[in-house]
Amino acid sequence: MVATVECLVERGWSGTTTTLVAERAGVSRGAQLHHFRTRGELVAAAVEHVGAESVQHLKARAEQVADAADRTTAVVTLIADFFASDLFTAALELWVAARTDPELRTVVVPLEVRLGRETHRLTVELLGADEARPGVREAVQATLDLCRGLALANQLTDDSKRRARIVRQWAAMVDQELGRAGT
Amino acid sequence: MVATVECLVERGWSGTTTTLVAERAGVSRGAQLHHFRTRGELVAAAVEHVGAESVQHLKARAEQVADAADRTTAVVTLIADFFASDLFTAALELWVAARTDPELRTVVVPLEVRLGRETHRLTVELLGADEARPGVREAVQATLDLCRGLALANQLTDDSKRRARIVRQWAAMVDQELGRAGT
Repeated sequence: MVATVECLVERGWSGTTTTLVAERAGVSRGAQLHHFRTRGELVAAAVEHVGAESVQHLKARAEQVADAADRTTAVVTLIADFFASDLFTAALELWVAARTDPELRTVVVPLEVRLGRETHRLTVELLGADEARPGVREAVQATLDLCRGLALANQLTDDSKRRARIVRQWAAMVDQELGRAGT
Repeated sequence: MVATVECLVERGWSGTTTTLVAERAGVSRGAQLHHFRTRGELVAAAVEHVGAESVQHLKARAEQVADAADRTTAVVTLIADFFASDLFTAALELWVAARTDPELRTVVVPLEVRLGRETHRLTVELLGADEARPGVREAVQATLDLCRGLALANQLTDDSKRRARIVRQWAAMVDQELGRAGT
């Protein structure tokens, strides 16, 4: 699974052949074909699997910052760094390829919905956000859209310094919106 | 130029051959080769040209909302819709391909810098933002990163309704940051 994500990062969607993935993962082509009918299914399953593992890893790290003085900044930093990772790069290859590949699209659209729900739920939990308050649900979603945009800006060059400044500023704005500025 | 962007949107980077672009634009391959040495140069020039035209179009539309009661929401809506357009889709094809194509990368990285500067300057102007105030520069940059993230969420499905809700919430938070909430 990790081998597939690595392959997407190194060679893009077009270079991620099922043969190459089988070779890297040390799995026979027969066993692979038994589980996945198409290259799209194989690659999407790998991104989903690694995604789920990464979310668990993110939760564990977030517990360590539970008592940080500036918890919102710490949490938004974790999420922004989570997005600006190889996993996002691999997912981006899939998303972009799916746009002009109808078969791949049928696999990727439901995956996007599942990953979107999962990251939203996690962000609400980590921020301790009360979505019953007007505007809070949208502020949480905006945080995730911002992190996606920041991850995109990190594809061709290392954007980590600028990202840290923007995350700090946004965390301050979110804190105000969550009704706990200055706490 | 528009033909190249259309081709990227319809067929992606891999399907945007110089032959096809020449055919669609009604230009001979000879004339095309006279101006551009590689497919990357040709395609990047098209994205930059259409990008510059779109920025002019955006400025003209922004002037029409100059007197809107809720100017910030109107401006952020314009910018978010500008990003969630075919031009962004075409640029995204280039960006993603450039990540695993060193030659294309040398063309795309400086283009990304130029387009980034241009859109930042425009956003500061349209929002009437005072970047001397602490945090304002980062809030403007965050607005552009958000719009990129929203555009990404619009690639496989029509995300315009959700986008409108997030833009409204974002604009309210930016207004507060610019020091003119409730005005």
